[in-house]
Amino acid sequence: MTQQRQFISKQEAKPPFFVGIDLGGTNIKMGLVDDLGRTLSWLTVPTHVELGGEDAARRMGQAVHRVIEQAGLRSADVARVGLGSPGTMDIPAGKLVVPANLKGWEHFPIRDRVAHHARLPVTFANDATAAAYGEFWIGSGREFHSMVLLTLGTGIGCGIIIGDLLLDGEHSHGGEFGHTIIDCDDDARTCACGRRGHLEAYASATAVTHRTHEQLSAGRRSTLQARITHGEELSPLLVAQEAQAGDDLSREIIFDTAKYLGIGMVNLMHTIDPNGILVGGAMTFGGHASDLGREFLARIQCEVKQRAYAVPADNTVIDFATLGGDAGYIGSAGIARGDYLKESPSHAAD
Amino acid sequence: MTQQRQFISKQEAKPPFFVGIDLGGTNIKMGLVDDLGRTLSWLTVPTHVELGGEDAARRMGQAVHRVIEQAGLRSADVARVGLGSPGTMDIPAGKLVVPANLKGWEHFPIRDRVAHHARLPVTFANDATAAAYGEFWIGSGREFHSMVLLTLGTGIGCGIIIGDLLLDGEHSHGGEFGHTIIDCDDDARTCACGRRGHLEAYASATAVTHRTHEQLSAGRRSTLQARITHGEELSPLLVAQEAQAGDDLSREIIFDTAKYLGIGMVNLMHTIDPNGILVGGAMTFGGHASDLGREFLARIQCEVKQRAYAVPADNTVIDFATLGGDAGYIGSAGIARGDYLKESPSHAAD
Repeated sequence: MTQQRQFISKQEAKPPFFVGIDLGGTNIKMGLVDDLGRTLSWLTVPTHVELGGEDAARRMGQAVHRVIEQAGLRSADVARVGLGSPGTMDIPAGKLVVPANLKGWEHFPIRDRVAHHARLPVTFANDATAAAYGEFWIGSGREFHSMVLLTLGTGIGCGIIIGDLLLDGEHSHGGEFGHTIIDCDDDARTCACGRRGHLEAYASATAVTHRTHEQLSAGRRSTLQARITHGEELSPLLVAQEAQAGDDLSREIIFDTAKYLGIGMVNLMHTIDPNGILVGGAMTFGGHASDLGREFLARIQCEVKQRAYAVPADNTVIDFATLGGDAGYIGSAGIARGDYLKESPSHAAD
Repeated sequence: MTQQRQFISKQEAKPPFFVGIDLGGTNIKMGLVDDLGRTLSWLTVPTHVELGGEDAARRMGQAVHRVIEQAGLRSADVARVGLGSPGTMDIPAGKLVVPANLKGWEHFPIRDRVAHHARLPVTFANDATAAAYGEFWIGSGREFHSMVLLTLGTGIGCGIIIGDLLLDGEHSHGGEFGHTIIDCDDDARTCACGRRGHLEAYASATAVTHRTHEQLSAGRRSTLQARITHGEELSPLLVAQEAQAGDDLSREIIFDTAKYLGIGMVNLMHTIDPNGILVGGAMTFGGHASDLGREFLARIQCEVKQRAYAVPADNTVIDFATLGGDAGYIGSAGIARGDYLKESPSHAAD
């Protein structure tokens, strides 16, 4: 446990309470939220993937009680725990399948093991879907009936909400949108998953670094070259800094990324036609707070306008997400709340 | 009115009854079905687009009563009418927007005008979604919880069902899947809608004809050349006949079509992850009844296996639709039945 921050106090909070867990390959973030999605307490613990699923489940169980204690509450005050995990997974079975970022945890029955150690009922969800639900519940998506959250990082996460329903898919593979094909050519870019033409191979942080490297290797002039020569590592952050300083190549790389994302969004619009598509994650180029972030968003919107049918083009909101790294645990808690309401309709009618 | 055919008799039928209308650019097909989706009577009338929406609504109203009479029933026996229409449309408003195949009917309030003339309540739906619902209710999709129907014709129609819910989209543009981008290159093929890289520009009947013509113009040898020289028109049917006779180019064109469809299906699987994806419409190359149709399906399945994640690849059913040209009116009736059940929960509990 390293950090904690108090958002609202126990006195202000509206029961019942839920604990949301955002399980990642490096850290596990966890928060206790009230019935309105407001955080009372939160903490982060290292995942220690190498120690295996059972060890992590035990430590998650302990941390659930620590986060409850931090909020000044008791275990009995918590109605349910939500656990958002990276895939692949089998959601109805509560098991991981072959999770790329949790090596050695294959087929681990994580939902029931966390429930055992936390001594609380656990709802199991995909982490990208959980983050989308967080934005849908209390973030930039709270006015939407249906929405998509694209999380830009090493890969491209995607969570889809249609109405109040999470689109888990019939085989827990809904929202693997980073792995949809936007280039059917035989020589299309190769994705980290080994297949060709995937959106993720064009628009993830990995892809940004790769495309920049390609251009530099081909002899394109750029102020990036000097920074790399001075020992800095090529990354979307470095590209963003040089773009802000006016470097042409860096700007081109970022705006091409916007183009590819726009193409992906049109595909979402012409398939599920949501109210809005939000962009979150580590690679938002500063978001609304920066000129570069705003231009990145504008370029995405422009690509969508050119490529989508007029009605969805004019009516689909395309914006940044607002909850940042908290979306995952808040959404996991929100999904747990959904299950709780299904079981306790009297509360829903309040 | 030209044809009629009796499927089951009034005595065998289970009330309540529904009339489904499948409105097309050339013909309007209409059927009276019982509570189990079985057809008692049906008929087809010409659309006469040039006479305008109000004239067609009046004739649809008359035809509704004719189809009821044919079944030996009275208007009071019919609980609701379902109207499936080509887009673009505004489903909640019951209006057409800019329907490509119904020129001059822009913004026509078709739902309420048909209801007025038929003197029955009308449920309004997208025709591709209606056809999908037909297959979902009583066709090849009846075992599925969620599914997609791709209808291959001049364009590519797409209807999506998730659970019992029709994916209309928030702006009535869900399932415009023919217009998703599978080739992001600037020189990608141009779709009939004017935009580039759409699935429809690669895998519709129009695309098959176009790609074949391109190859012939480039000097590719094919037995198609002789038939065209003899005055026959190039079409997917001609290509299918020559493919069956062993013509290499014709076979290549059809199997490339399977490849593009496979790519589209992977995108559906990695977005909404349905139980199954069905292929219907005029261009199924004979379907299960022909060697060519079966090979076409096998090639689609093979492309999907190579490109999709293992779990959806192994578990998603890819097959032909079974209701043919009846899917539209049966599905429209089924969607009307859904609305009726929502209004009359006592019936639903039977």
